[in-house]
Amino acid sequence: MRVRKKPWAEPYIKEHQEYIVLDPQSYLGKWQDRFAKKQPLHVEIGTGKGQFIIQMAKKYPDVNFIGIELQESVIATALRSFLEDPTPNLQFVLTDGGDVNEFFTAHEIEKIYLNFSDPWPKTRHAKRRLTSPGFLKSYQDVLKTDGEIEFKTDNRGLFEYSLGSFNNYGMQFEYVSLDLHKSPEAEDNVETEYEQKFSPQGPIYKLVAKFNS
Amino acid sequence: MRVRKKPWAEPYIKEHQEYIVLDPQSYLGKWQDRFAKKQPLHVEIGTGKGQFIIQMAKKYPDVNFIGIELQESVIATALRSFLEDPTPNLQFVLTDGGDVNEFFTAHEIEKIYLNFSDPWPKTRHAKRRLTSPGFLKSYQDVLKTDGEIEFKTDNRGLFEYSLGSFNNYGMQFEYVSLDLHKSPEAEDNVETEYEQKFSPQGPIYKLVAKFNS
Repeated sequence: MRVRKKPWAEPYIKEHQEYIVLDPQSYLGKWQDRFAKKQPLHVEIGTGKGQFIIQMAKKYPDVNFIGIELQESVIATALRSFLEDPTPNLQFVLTDGGDVNEFFTAHEIEKIYLNFSDPWPKTRHAKRRLTSPGFLKSYQDVLKTDGEIEFKTDNRGLFEYSLGSFNNYGMQFEYVSLDLHKSPEAEDNVETEYEQKFSPQGPIYKLVAKFNS
Repeated sequence: MRVRKKPWAEPYIKEHQEYIVLDPQSYLGKWQDRFAKKQPLHVEIGTGKGQFIIQMAKKYPDVNFIGIELQESVIATALRSFLEDPTPNLQFVLTDGGDVNEFFTAHEIEKIYLNFSDPWPKTRHAKRRLTSPGFLKSYQDVLKTDGEIEFKTDNRGLFEYSLGSFNNYGMQFEYVSLDLHKSPEAEDNVETEYEQKFSPQGPIYKLVAKFNS
């Protein structure tokens, strides 16, 4: 999405570098140093205003979470929400999450979340979709064997594409819902801001899959 | 579905055995003998009252079609509709379509259609679903290398299950629609009776997949 620039964002981020990383390459293989405890690492790519990852960090204290977001003004809002009641198991990263294999090492991550990623509906932009084969390769590089991708979207076209893309890449489906909010798993679902706002307009789709070892 | 017995069905079927097979085992490897021309063979399992397969046979004269249905009263209705304007490229079979590998030989079939199969919603009945691994094995036995399964349903639970089942079996997805009637492919879609009646109530899901060779 296009975002209005917020003048306070840049200085705010610079002041709170204990919770946000601006030079992810320097943590290659050393991400656990950013946390109070060494724990399984879960990463959200495109963390937006942070509602999902902040709630997940509170709900699962035995997991270390990283929220990656490309847009400064957006991640600054996430950081500000988080700092109202910070937990020691969440860090933010301001960078392009598609390049995860440039700043994570092999098998460093247990789970990757893709929530309501940009659908890039035009066929000529298919390579930009975060569920396209090029990105799946990056995720495979950094996920543990049996590590999972959890993907949610309300965009039918993107979900149809992604079912095909994950399948054709040879990934194994572990869970599929074509209407998550009406599924038994709904009670465990942690919503993103976007999901909360738009789910009354249509179904939320969810896919959990892993790379075949 | 439970079907009211139609007294006319059995004699009607017996009178028209040039278009309906009652002893499929005797045609093992010889199905092409039932048709005017030797052509690629497409099979619908659970052909119901026949609207889909009869229309397909008219639309694609260069394909030989077989419609399999277990219930005598239902297939008798299909046969009667067909005989109003018969084509030489359609045959019916009164039998249990789940056992296709008992009366087709290896690589005999180019495409299998599963349309609005019984969802068997209870977990303990999962093995009865026509998209469960045991049946996929039967289809794989009789399909050509690169032969396809085309599956349509309006049942969300069955479609979620089937996406997982096809994927976990190692099949490759070629086409996925989560709302067929709103997809560009809708104009080529041939509807079943059930589909025509119930599609206004919700989306029709479609999956085309093949076995990896």
